[in-house]
Amino acid sequence: MSSRHALAPARPVDDHRRRIEDVLRPLAGRPAEPVSMPRALGRRLAADVHAPLDLPVFRNSAMDGYAVRAESVAIVPATLPLAGVVAAGNTEQMTFEPGTAVKVMTGAPVPPGADCVVPVEHTESDGVTVTVRTSRATGDFVREPGTDVRAGQLLAAAGTLLRPRHIAALAAVGLGELSVFRPVRAAVLTTGDELRPAGAALLPGQIFDSNGIALAAALTDNGVEVVSVAHSTDNHDEFRDRLTEAVAQADVVFTSGGVSMGDFEVVKEVLTPLGGEFGSVAMQPGGPQGLSVVDGVPVLSFPGNPVSTMVSFEVFARPILRELAGLPALPISELPLLEPVRSPAGKRQFLRGKLAEGGVALVSGQGSHLIAAMAQADVLVDIPAAATELPVGTIVEVRPL
Amino acid sequence: MSSRHALAPARPVDDHRRRIEDVLRPLAGRPAEPVSMPRALGRRLAADVHAPLDLPVFRNSAMDGYAVRAESVAIVPATLPLAGVVAAGNTEQMTFEPGTAVKVMTGAPVPPGADCVVPVEHTESDGVTVTVRTSRATGDFVREPGTDVRAGQLLAAAGTLLRPRHIAALAAVGLGELSVFRPVRAAVLTTGDELRPAGAALLPGQIFDSNGIALAAALTDNGVEVVSVAHSTDNHDEFRDRLTEAVAQADVVFTSGGVSMGDFEVVKEVLTPLGGEFGSVAMQPGGPQGLSVVDGVPVLSFPGNPVSTMVSFEVFARPILRELAGLPALPISELPLLEPVRSPAGKRQFLRGKLAEGGVALVSGQGSHLIAAMAQADVLVDIPAAATELPVGTIVEVRPL
Repeated sequence: MSSRHALAPARPVDDHRRRIEDVLRPLAGRPAEPVSMPRALGRRLAADVHAPLDLPVFRNSAMDGYAVRAESVAIVPATLPLAGVVAAGNTEQMTFEPGTAVKVMTGAPVPPGADCVVPVEHTESDGVTVTVRTSRATGDFVREPGTDVRAGQLLAAAGTLLRPRHIAALAAVGLGELSVFRPVRAAVLTTGDELRPAGAALLPGQIFDSNGIALAAALTDNGVEVVSVAHSTDNHDEFRDRLTEAVAQADVVFTSGGVSMGDFEVVKEVLTPLGGEFGSVAMQPGGPQGLSVVDGVPVLSFPGNPVSTMVSFEVFARPILRELAGLPALPISELPLLEPVRSPAGKRQFLRGKLAEGGVALVSGQGSHLIAAMAQADVLVDIPAAATELPVGTIVEVRPL
Repeated sequence: MSSRHALAPARPVDDHRRRIEDVLRPLAGRPAEPVSMPRALGRRLAADVHAPLDLPVFRNSAMDGYAVRAESVAIVPATLPLAGVVAAGNTEQMTFEPGTAVKVMTGAPVPPGADCVVPVEHTESDGVTVTVRTSRATGDFVREPGTDVRAGQLLAAAGTLLRPRHIAALAAVGLGELSVFRPVRAAVLTTGDELRPAGAALLPGQIFDSNGIALAAALTDNGVEVVSVAHSTDNHDEFRDRLTEAVAQADVVFTSGGVSMGDFEVVKEVLTPLGGEFGSVAMQPGGPQGLSVVDGVPVLSFPGNPVSTMVSFEVFARPILRELAGLPALPISELPLLEPVRSPAGKRQFLRGKLAEGGVALVSGQGSHLIAAMAQADVLVDIPAAATELPVGTIVEVRPL
């Protein structure tokens, strides 16, 4: 056997990101599902919602007070006979004699014929008559039906990311269930003979399988529903079985490990014959990347170093997943470097940084295996491929982790 | 019966807010609970987490390549006998003869005695020997144990809000479960004879009960676990029963309605004899407010108009609930008004606004019942109590909804 490993031409980061986005964007057309309120919070409306009724539903009082005709209180103080009391929730037919007053509670129907409400604070009553001390104009403290929203009017447009204020308005028109887009469903599949589940006793040469848990957390955090997290050894048959299961239940599958230049690259070896493309992207960390479509389901294959996995997620998956979930795009800011950076020519670097007074600092430990160091970072610092020496104060793009 | 409703002296907004915060802040001491990964995402660590082991766990290769002694490749090209292959996950004892090369995969143990790794890209092999084309220094591409984190070192401090990067680091040291603070548990209790559940047929004078759903959404959105959403009519016994149930299962209870100056103010009437304080806060919307402690459980009583309820939540509850959940404080910004505002003297106004180019505009419809209009707003505009005429361009404080 003879082998020679040439340095394959590496693809630019943005090329690979666009290919992934092109493959994932059709997931925007996923189906709607009914979700009961208030669980629809944070989901995206699948269709325009029009008001099924007027708000206010009926003419009602804005205050606790007395419903009168404005002409009856044009000269004050005015003492009027008290003709009744209307509580909120009163569903009976009401009559009103001009020249009288009817006590009304906030939200209670204003009797037809009364044209304003005098707040209780501006009155005195002995239970038989009420003395009004301030005049009122027609319409004062009376809420007319349809002044908030008219039946048939658009309340919230398709695509709206439902915040509490939308939930409040949609509940007010009596909707108990909303049609929202189903979240994108993802399956996570980690690979590697060396990986052991949390809590296991490690033999020499073994490490904990953290990528599955970490990717699941990152996906959940970006509006994706994680339907499974599984692990496969480097055995081809086992990986193929796990992959088949993942593809059957998910809209998109994320794998970690098995994409590099070693002798046991199960992900690359199984997926390449199925049409998967594997190669090097001009970035650090996260160079080796794969993209496949299996039975119509996109499979994103990230390298297995924990930091490489998480940076791959941030760079290639997070922006499009947020777009699909209707979440706001991540703000990219430009900040000065607080320390000098050296970078290899031709590779875009995503360094782990920390926002500080006046700019961005790097966390110590930039190796692709330094996952504990990454916990200290709150941003990724984007160093362009062409840059090699960046002095203190160089303006760099920074994206939140 | 004689009644005279004097204008009670209204309490400043910040006074009432501070009283609520004083009553809720002890909930910071609520118990911890174990939560399995990755469900701990978004929760707060209840205790410092120290690394139970070194990371890397063992000396391993950073590349797919050949483990050698640096001295063997000081002069290149150097052809060395290939003495074996070590895969990631290899748990067997390894030996190493100086002068030979052992093929190692990324993450595989580096045999003791080898002191650097030559990346496979810089070699050629016929399966019996390997020819190395580049020299390497001692330590190149070898990851030493404990260089990411040492056993015993602090990985994440108590109080940390767990983001995916923390989950990744804690999973890497093998933790399958984390001790996190139990979220604050809230019960919501709406009142009013006029309220009907979603989907019901409304009789004249009835409206939909939206405050329960809306408060549940707002609470969930701010890190609170909603344990119940219930409704009571204005019947005292029924309210007392529902309140007893709510207090039994929650850390804090939110009521809506029944706090004003009408004849049927069930919340005020039941809670005042239990020591609850009810009165007017100098604000619009949301003036009538109540605060009680029942069996040690704080009960916040908001007025029933839907906008009043939501503004009360934003002003009095949201900041302290976010603090208790470990969520970031809401950013308060200062922006110019895009239109003139008139405001009654002595009442702080919280107007519903919309961010726009160059400042903040108001949404049309500022009445406390205009809940559909509120869905169009993305901010609350804070108009100080003393201000009465604010021309275009006046700088106002704006908080996100």
